[in-house]
Amino acid sequence: MADPSSLDLPAPATSFASDNAAGVHPSVLDAMVAANEGSALAYGGDACTARVEDRFRDLFGRDVTTALVWGGTGANVVALQSLLRPWQAVICSESAHIAVDECGAPERFTGAKLIDLPTPDGKLAPEQITEQIHLLGDEHHVQPAVVSITQSTESGTLYTADEVAAISDTAHRHGLTVHLDGARIANATAALGATVDALRSVTVDAGVDVISFGGTKAGMMYGEAVIFIDPTLGADVRFIRKQAGQLPSKMRYVAAQFEALLTDNLWIELASSANAMAARLATEVGGVDGVELTRPPAVNSVFARLPRPAIEALQSWSFFWDWDHHVDEVRWMTSWATTADDIARFVAGVRAALV
Amino acid sequence: MADPSSLDLPAPATSFASDNAAGVHPSVLDAMVAANEGSALAYGGDACTARVEDRFRDLFGRDVTTALVWGGTGANVVALQSLLRPWQAVICSESAHIAVDECGAPERFTGAKLIDLPTPDGKLAPEQITEQIHLLGDEHHVQPAVVSITQSTESGTLYTADEVAAISDTAHRHGLTVHLDGARIANATAALGATVDALRSVTVDAGVDVISFGGTKAGMMYGEAVIFIDPTLGADVRFIRKQAGQLPSKMRYVAAQFEALLTDNLWIELASSANAMAARLATEVGGVDGVELTRPPAVNSVFARLPRPAIEALQSWSFFWDWDHHVDEVRWMTSWATTADDIARFVAGVRAALV
Amino acid sequence: MADPSSLDLPAPATSFASDNAAGVHPSVLDAMVAANEGSALAYGGDACTARVEDRFRDLFGRDVTTALVWGGTGANVVALQSLLRPWQAVICSESAHIAVDECGAPERFTGAKLIDLPTPDGKLAPEQITEQIHLLGDEHHVQPAVVSITQSTESGTLYTADEVAAISDTAHRHGLTVHLDGARIANATAALGATVDALRSVTVDAGVDVISFGGTKAGMMYGEAVIFIDPTLGADVRFIRKQAGQLPSKMRYVAAQFEALLTDNLWIELASSANAMAARLATEVGGVDGVELTRPPAVNSVFARLPRPAIEALQSWSFFWDWDHHVDEVRWMTSWATTADDIARFVAGVRAALV
Amino acid sequence: MADPSSLDLPAPATSFASDNAAGVHPSVLDAMVAANEGSALAYGGDACTARVEDRFRDLFGRDVTTALVWGGTGANVVALQSLLRPWQAVICSESAHIAVDECGAPERFTGAKLIDLPTPDGKLAPEQITEQIHLLGDEHHVQPAVVSITQSTESGTLYTADEVAAISDTAHRHGLTVHLDGARIANATAALGATVDALRSVTVDAGVDVISFGGTKAGMMYGEAVIFIDPTLGADVRFIRKQAGQLPSKMRYVAAQFEALLTDNLWIELASSANAMAARLATEVGGVDGVELTRPPAVNSVFARLPRPAIEALQSWSFFWDWDHHVDEVRWMTSWATTADDIARFVAGVRAALV
Repeated sequence: MADPSSLDLPAPATSFASDNAAGVHPSVLDAMVAANEGSALAYGGDACTARVEDRFRDLFGRDVTTALVWGGTGANVVALQSLLRPWQAVICSESAHIAVDECGAPERFTGAKLIDLPTPDGKLAPEQITEQIHLLGDEHHVQPAVVSITQSTESGTLYTADEVAAISDTAHRHGLTVHLDGARIANATAALGATVDALRSVTVDAGVDVISFGGTKAGMMYGEAVIFIDPTLGADVRFIRKQAGQLPSKMRYVAAQFEALLTDNLWIELASSANAMAARLATEVGGVDGVELTRPPAVNSVFARLPRPAIEALQSWSFFWDWDHHVDEVRWMTSWATTADDIARFVAGVRAALV
Repeated sequence: MADPSSLDLPAPATSFASDNAAGVHPSVLDAMVAANEGSALAYGGDACTARVEDRFRDLFGRDVTTALVWGGTGANVVALQSLLRPWQAVICSESAHIAVDECGAPERFTGAKLIDLPTPDGKLAPEQITEQIHLLGDEHHVQPAVVSITQSTESGTLYTADEVAAISDTAHRHGLTVHLDGARIANATAALGATVDALRSVTVDAGVDVISFGGTKAGMMYGEAVIFIDPTLGADVRFIRKQAGQLPSKMRYVAAQFEALLTDNLWIELASSANAMAARLATEVGGVDGVELTRPPAVNSVFARLPRPAIEALQSWSFFWDWDHHVDEVRWMTSWATTADDIARFVAGVRAALV
Repeated sequence: MADPSSLDLPAPATSFASDNAAGVHPSVLDAMVAANEGSALAYGGDACTARVEDRFRDLFGRDVTTALVWGGTGANVVALQSLLRPWQAVICSESAHIAVDECGAPERFTGAKLIDLPTPDGKLAPEQITEQIHLLGDEHHVQPAVVSITQSTESGTLYTADEVAAISDTAHRHGLTVHLDGARIANATAALGATVDALRSVTVDAGVDVISFGGTKAGMMYGEAVIFIDPTLGADVRFIRKQAGQLPSKMRYVAAQFEALLTDNLWIELASSANAMAARLATEVGGVDGVELTRPPAVNSVFARLPRPAIEALQSWSFFWDWDHHVDEVRWMTSWATTADDIARFVAGVRAALV
Repeated sequence: MADPSSLDLPAPATSFASDNAAGVHPSVLDAMVAANEGSALAYGGDACTARVEDRFRDLFGRDVTTALVWGGTGANVVALQSLLRPWQAVICSESAHIAVDECGAPERFTGAKLIDLPTPDGKLAPEQITEQIHLLGDEHHVQPAVVSITQSTESGTLYTADEVAAISDTAHRHGLTVHLDGARIANATAALGATVDALRSVTVDAGVDVISFGGTKAGMMYGEAVIFIDPTLGADVRFIRKQAGQLPSKMRYVAAQFEALLTDNLWIELASSANAMAARLATEVGGVDGVELTRPPAVNSVFARLPRPAIEALQSWSFFWDWDHHVDEVRWMTSWATTADDIARFVAGVRAALV
């Protein structure tokens, strides 16, 4: 089998390490440049921010409250703080980004605890919520108050609209609210029909209360939006955002990016491309001897097992991350920037590494 | 005296409300566009971030540790958390940004308390530190551990190098560290000689331990740098930054902005222009009957008193903020983007409002 | 003037250092011993706790919610956490116990900030609240939400019922709630008429929302009560108390102490004695050459200035605390345990020290 | 099978619900009464507190630092805060008191996260620590810094000295410290040999760094001690204790209780009695048809399964808690106050309930 140095093939131009490794879509970048005209009141007092808030109202068909923030961890922290008191708790998957990838920021900032439950495919089930309900009222135990789900999940899987609705129903029945971490809500929307209706069916129509709506992975440079479907839940969000260090001063540039992304459903189009590239990669690489796909790609990630020496040779050539080191499983991610040529080069590399 | 509607003169193209109202300098924007090539590892694993870290080592002539973050509140929070345990306290001016403009973020995140002391001109004196030292060792009282000063101050004043050194000496003698909030360190540097030596003389040479080095007000779109003069103080900053929600994923764009700003001392040049425009504004507006400058401009802000009706007429025409409503004092800020034409238009407006 | 060693008079049996230096009243101790019969459900599930909750309902003539806790800092923390979100703030005196004597516990636990205002006599005025109201709505600034007053104050002064009512009216008019730190509510009640009506007139009738009702200084061994005049404000107090580490396991002993103290108004009787002893001390010591009383005693503290050598001689002989070292002012506190003989001995010592 | 009303037998005088339901041992109560003489400086400035600190030095044969606190949650919070920064984490059992019975107090106060791992018998294994070590250095994840074990465990099991040593070795090898929650350290010591050497062998000799040393369950009214085996770890504990609301003002009464308990090893003697009563209960009740002991009693708890109607009948008659409702498992706890007569009555009740 190949040693790393033997991969002298041309590497893909776009990394498969993460959708954060991609650049900024040209339309978004153009909008930022265009926004760089004259002065604008800071902290969201500009016209573009007002327009984007209207755009989100249109997108969800509701009088939603929108708070633009810097990043994904910030969005989740601001969303959760709006829903929680410090003696309460969030029910989530043990693979949730809030549980394992944010260095404890949600607990640190809210004071509340995460009850992170095992989910083989990254998806919570309503029964898992029900099992925690007996804790309500026991002063010795933190009080479950929020259910947080990720769509699409960290495992590259999707909740159906019915699954989200079942979770929301269970949560609401017991007085809990529902937060959706949508760092990849674009990829999920693309996979579930690629329409605004698809977005609504898994969010507002399914009872979700607050959404972390991702911009960065969808083609922006930076910026996420916290969307309160029920504006009363966002009544204090301005203070929470500021105290969390998540209020951009020159806000117009965050707003301009979202305006570009939301125009003509560019965000769905880009995510559809990313998803299609993942499907293509899965198809092509799935046929290579020595590669075992561990699940079919639902969005923009491909999970595969291959021999350790091949993994290391490929990582040296074009870096990506291990997913589960114990079983030699890796994750390859596509983005809006991934091209058919990138796929072709990458698959050639995989073949070479497995000779 | 003029009513608001009578000001039908052309308004300045650049706002005097804040240096946050300015756009992004073209060289910085060009660097961002240029950075948008291909993939780059996220979270600072890119080549440009490494180069910027070296740039800051060159700038300060030391092996400083640099942590790039989103915004000014974030920079202060990350800096202070690196220096504080929650039963400790920060000695600062009662007009410090950390005390009055960050919605309690420093206390909330660090758990520590601010001991904010009266300072008519925004500048702490060493004696004010000394007066708090008797609290050390008393378990009933929070323990002073950090002195935080702002350079240039929120009041538009400057510490001399000797003044900073005297503060640092006092602080260090009692075991406290010194944080410098340099959201406008560029304006201060420009005013103190406009050289790298001028920067060093009020920071590393004067005993400052950690700096919030401002980028946004200096001409960037977003991004600040936390600089640990003593790298041991920054040993845990990666975790602190992440937990504070201050780790940009597509870091290369923050780094590219700083790289542009630090090239050929562009940051000093732009701040020098902003300062010069403030001086010009003070000179011209100071001669208008009915305007009283409350202090000579040291950097890029002009503080003036004028009659309330004139204030309101002017604010309707080209918005700016009241500074002290009780005495009809306002603050006019210039930035890198302010032009001589902006000054001329604004002064014409002031004249018209005072007729 | 006397050197310390010259005071070979018999020292008082009871310390004038603090009312915390006193022991436990015999009736209270008897009640604790009596409570030590058999088993009792932990955490307040015992019969005595239920009886004490009823006692407090009777005392205030309302359906108040009572939460028994360990200590004074704990009571304040539990009370304030019930009223605050972390981006809010408490308006208080800069000499308030919560501001200077709790090592930052209120800020640390609630995340909120204290806006501590200068009060020469320890008493807030309604105008001081009004001056902070302009901050409401400004996302850059913490939001005033609670006014906390101390009765009797740390300076040994008293609010009249009208003064408390004026503060409550101002607070409520702007949507703020009122917390009363009543670590010495017994001494205040004794001084204001020594009846249950006197208590009510400065609390429930004056619009106070939540009270830290002191037990320890009033003659107990340990234990304080947080009283929610409006039970809706205490809806989550069980969780807050537990999370704050303020839920005694063998609660019956806290309850038994309060039961003893509230029986036949023992708490008022003991505080009346303490107050009377302070008055007596003031009268007698006020006549000694070289002693200047800095204010008339309103409750159980006497503030006096005397020469530094005399202070030090006396402290070596029978310890007490400096109050304001800069002006050689000391504080002498009486308690339920102070006797006429203690006063006589102490005054003899003062005379001897000033010879 | 019996309905509840049929149990008209005399109930035991001592509850089997919890060792917190017991009263105070007469020797301890006598010491409290004896301590009620004259004045004593507050906050630990009294002579008895100094004596108890020496007692703990003698007990552990080291220059340990002792901090007396109010309660068990408080002891754990103070101990953990001394060892943790907020981006760090505690590795513990998912049944640990800190994880499930303290309403999130440890996370809330320290900001750090608990990594709570499954442990069928309540005991962590060194391999479970090792598995978390790969997280060290990853800024996206909280950093394991403390291992917390409970001795005896919440499941009524015991670590051997070798098992604790193996955990400490693993922890220390990776730079983590070891906390021991010893709410029932007395019962553990009694079970492991009933000598001071037995205590030392599972604590100081086994590498434990900080201990929450339980007093309340051991026969006291209130009060626990945080013991820093290495005094440098307790350098800031005075401030931490105060800020945590865990500094008793009239400290002498806490100290007096510990002094009584530590005299002539009374704490071991009482725990030995409690353990013996549990063994006796297990033996007697184990022979009753319909009762299944789920594990042999190692300390002062008996876990048993019996039919639900019998459980309910017994709970109505003499309350105790379900342990695992799903499998009809209950927990019966003995204490220093449990007598042979209590056992006889209780067993008679169990027999009657199962007829």
